[in-house]
Amino acid sequence: MSIRDVAKEAGVSPATVSRVLNNSGYVHEDTRKAVLQAVKKLNYKPNEVARSLYKGKSKLIGLVLPDITNPFFPELARGVEDYLQKKGYRLLLGNGDGKQQKEIDYLDTFVQHNVVGIIASVDNVDYDFLSNMNIPIVMLDRIVKDLPAVYSDQFQGGSLAAEKLLERGCKEITLVRGPMNIHPVYERFQASLAVLQEANVKVNKIDSNLSFNGAKCRAKELFEKYPDSDGIIACNDIVAVAILHEALRRGRKVPEDVQIIGFDDISISELVYPGLSTIHQPIYQMGSKAAELLLKEIHNEKLDSKRYKFSCSFVERETTKKVGD
Amino acid sequence: MSIRDVAKEAGVSPATVSRVLNNSGYVHEDTRKAVLQAVKKLNYKPNEVARSLYKGKSKLIGLVLPDITNPFFPELARGVEDYLQKKGYRLLLGNGDGKQQKEIDYLDTFVQHNVVGIIASVDNVDYDFLSNMNIPIVMLDRIVKDLPAVYSDQFQGGSLAAEKLLERGCKEITLVRGPMNIHPVYERFQASLAVLQEANVKVNKIDSNLSFNGAKCRAKELFEKYPDSDGIIACNDIVAVAILHEALRRGRKVPEDVQIIGFDDISISELVYPGLSTIHQPIYQMGSKAAELLLKEIHNEKLDSKRYKFSCSFVERETTKKVGD
Repeated sequence: MSIRDVAKEAGVSPATVSRVLNNSGYVHEDTRKAVLQAVKKLNYKPNEVARSLYKGKSKLIGLVLPDITNPFFPELARGVEDYLQKKGYRLLLGNGDGKQQKEIDYLDTFVQHNVVGIIASVDNVDYDFLSNMNIPIVMLDRIVKDLPAVYSDQFQGGSLAAEKLLERGCKEITLVRGPMNIHPVYERFQASLAVLQEANVKVNKIDSNLSFNGAKCRAKELFEKYPDSDGIIACNDIVAVAILHEALRRGRKVPEDVQIIGFDDISISELVYPGLSTIHQPIYQMGSKAAELLLKEIHNEKLDSKRYKFSCSFVERETTKKVGD
Repeated sequence: MSIRDVAKEAGVSPATVSRVLNNSGYVHEDTRKAVLQAVKKLNYKPNEVARSLYKGKSKLIGLVLPDITNPFFPELARGVEDYLQKKGYRLLLGNGDGKQQKEIDYLDTFVQHNVVGIIASVDNVDYDFLSNMNIPIVMLDRIVKDLPAVYSDQFQGGSLAAEKLLERGCKEITLVRGPMNIHPVYERFQASLAVLQEANVKVNKIDSNLSFNGAKCRAKELFEKYPDSDGIIACNDIVAVAILHEALRRGRKVPEDVQIIGFDDISISELVYPGLSTIHQPIYQMGSKAAELLLKEIHNEKLDSKRYKFSCSFVERETTKKVGD
């Protein structure tokens, strides 16, 4: 349905339809009525994009995430979307899957589809590419040089996880390390490791990806390779939940025999039994703040800072001992 | 960045830039070079939307879902997106939250943003509105009169849940009923109820919403109101997991004392302990099929059928007894 269909129906030129819809220029009253009748008959919606394109602007924002089926990201995406929705913007969504080609393809085609800004949580696109896009951009849960970015303090969160297990008497701690090319995952791991290496405890490492399926296998491997672990720091909550249930399956008592800490505090952490102790990131707020920063950029408002860093906090549930136990 | 910026940079008119980019009409070779140089310098991406708008087409598809933070929907959305991505289409996403105003607002603004088709999982928008949009549309996980629709067989799935608990010897079965205005939730409940009413068992009903937070409260209420339930059919897996963990908290043995069946088979069902027995819906495939049908509509290809119904199946894990036990 285009302005030309309306023009055809009304028996006038597209330019006349445009003048009527925009209330600009002279149009004879009978012609005006004919156009409005055609608009009504065809249920034509004056096209915001067509108008905004003329001014060089749409109301579209592009969001590129790793994978919406990882439960961290729906919450992040809702934070973005709810803020944009209130401000009249609409969201184009793409999953990059950690693949450079997909990440670039989404970024490129979003720009071609005339988005006015981009929020990116990508791992394989460099600073040159991103800054050459010539479009307002905010990195989310990722940092790329001096591009505006919203994230939480992975270093503090990773340290916290290690400190909490040390306080609770763990002597052999296994770190389940996620993919090291994902910056926040790298940073939280390094921070935990640094704290543990300063302490008088045995430290093991095991690698995992961040998905449901990967986590299940790694959980089995963990208990076979390091059966004496009395503390486990998982790279995210999904992995922690997989480890928790594998521990229960093997008859290990949680937290008496083995204490487990996750990362993220996704909804499911509260729902499992025993409830998962974890490092909380304000996921929804991060998404919302990224949208806020981006709209400020788009409207050329002054940013107090190009970076917005949230603090992490320890959420004590049932997979860690109470201090003093 | 618009065609006018390129024109300014090259010192020519926007129409000339357009002729160069579209290879249409005569342009002097020097002028052509100047334009291409300006395109390169400004990193201008020829605007697919601007071009496609002229032809009355974009490559945008709108998807309106209830809530992406409910784990059923990310999987559904990925099914849609993966199919569209392969075909060069891009996805506009909106969460309707079961509110008519949001559902209508997203549908309207998606059309205004020139989407070429819509996939809708909405509960409060009627046939007249949807069919008057004059745009290819596919209902997903929802049925509205004769509009094209992709869904799974809730009647069969709901019956199956009840049959499996009866086969496993349950004598007092509690149905946890979701919001009755959500058609598939209504249908699966009615189907379970019909099977149970034919059998010689006590049947209880309790209401719940479909979210993490709602489910936690309802789980407590369930065991207080109906402590003798030996079988529970939950309206979805989220609710089932909340009930499972509440049962364990209360020292009830699962499946010995109480058997639990969920609905959907979202990823988390496999990850909890004990693993959740549930009714499987092919969620990802449903999303993918909806995208396929919609593109066929858009390209005026003949549909074998306007309806595509998937079968459900019982996934036996650890919250139900083995038959013969």
